[in-house]
Amino acid sequence: MTSTWADEALTRDAFLGGRVTLLQPRRGYRAGTDPVLLAAAVEAEPGQSVLELGCGAGAALMCLAARVPDLALWGAEIQPAYADLARRNAALNGAQAEIHTADLRALPAALKARRFDHVIANPPYFDRAHSRPAPNPAKETAFGAPLPMAAWVDAMARRVAPLGRLTLIQRADRLPEIIAALHGRMGGIALRPLVSRAGRDAERVVVTARQSGRAAFRLAAPLVLHAGARHLSDAADFTPEAETILRDGGILRI
Amino acid sequence: MTSTWADEALTRDAFLGGRVTLLQPRRGYRAGTDPVLLAAAVEAEPGQSVLELGCGAGAALMCLAARVPDLALWGAEIQPAYADLARRNAALNGAQAEIHTADLRALPAALKARRFDHVIANPPYFDRAHSRPAPNPAKETAFGAPLPMAAWVDAMARRVAPLGRLTLIQRADRLPEIIAALHGRMGGIALRPLVSRAGRDAERVVVTARQSGRAAFRLAAPLVLHAGARHLSDAADFTPEAETILRDGGILRI
Repeated sequence: MTSTWADEALTRDAFLGGRVTLLQPRRGYRAGTDPVLLAAAVEAEPGQSVLELGCGAGAALMCLAARVPDLALWGAEIQPAYADLARRNAALNGAQAEIHTADLRALPAALKARRFDHVIANPPYFDRAHSRPAPNPAKETAFGAPLPMAAWVDAMARRVAPLGRLTLIQRADRLPEIIAALHGRMGGIALRPLVSRAGRDAERVVVTARQSGRAAFRLAAPLVLHAGARHLSDAADFTPEAETILRDGGILRI
Repeated sequence: MTSTWADEALTRDAFLGGRVTLLQPRRGYRAGTDPVLLAAAVEAEPGQSVLELGCGAGAALMCLAARVPDLALWGAEIQPAYADLARRNAALNGAQAEIHTADLRALPAALKARRFDHVIANPPYFDRAHSRPAPNPAKETAFGAPLPMAAWVDAMARRVAPLGRLTLIQRADRLPEIIAALHGRMGGIALRPLVSRAGRDAERVVVTARQSGRAAFRLAAPLVLHAGARHLSDAADFTPEAETILRDGGILRI
């Protein structure tokens, strides 16, 4: 993959009911609802700084910028072609963002010199020890990078300002790795399960923690994404709470 | 406190809709719904062995014996007077139980020589680093013992048979300590949040893990204990699922 894109290799996709437009590759990693949910869970205030590790084409950063004005956005993305898209998407959406092509294990001095009010991430979902690689190499990097969750949590925690917070979204089955990495290191840990239907096991979790928090751990009620017991039609069947978050730019409270 | 009880110091209380009768002290630690929920979550089969660490007066063991026949029950309880009650309660309910007066950090040879199909616990709920002692010393030992959760998990894990399982109930805010202690040590970790009302934060969690499990971590849907948005009358207002578990001896699935 090159670090630039032919026009026909890209699509323009609307997020947050049209508040955000994203250039995305036709093939490879394409944002679904997870970066939108991640952005919705970040309690950023106008004027604050936000760093996303593994920002991809910038879906979460752009969704966050659409909800909270005057943020200073930063991103690190290991794949040059996605970092390029994130820069184009920031310009397209009128957001101020400084995107670095970088491995989170070796961040550039510009990022290592700073701490951020919020550090966010949507780390790759598949643990290569237990699954097969994706055939598309870009998709494979986005989904299957071999870094343990502890490396993500460590890289995030190092960049969080003294009163700042980290927020991440991840597959529910990796929660023990996340909790073990956060426990004793950060405070005010809270998590909200995301379930496709009421009564099901959690599929994703959104986890947040404070750099210097002393609040007790909280396990919030699941956010149920889809109404009804199963998928009945091709129409979107989001619950009202999910609809508010995904279409209207509402906050995902934890 | 002595290790025997005057009759007038005790009450006889019905659990599981009358299937279990427990002698309990009028003052001090008295079982509520938590040991009943713990017992309901233990997937024991007839003929298996079960050890409870910190068994108190035996509420969880007796509830489990009422649901699953032919269990070999064992208990360790640090307070002699409660260990005495657990023995009396086993006799009263026709259960086979060997109760040891013992600190879980120094279990007797009879327990250290064995491994059990199930090891269960309802560890004290209050972390003395962040709360005040209870005025009643027995209640204080039951609720506020200073052992970290890692010591409980460690003592439990050491006694679980190779294909066995541990199950514990605890305040939700201590989940990070529990998960951190289990992660990398046991497998097939699963947890179910317990909430008083739908949509609330979890108050308790039931956590289970296998000695040699390889199944992915699972975060199940909350068990909602009470119906409605708030307490409206003095009548019990359990949800049908909670009623089935607490009154009819049903299983709490995780």
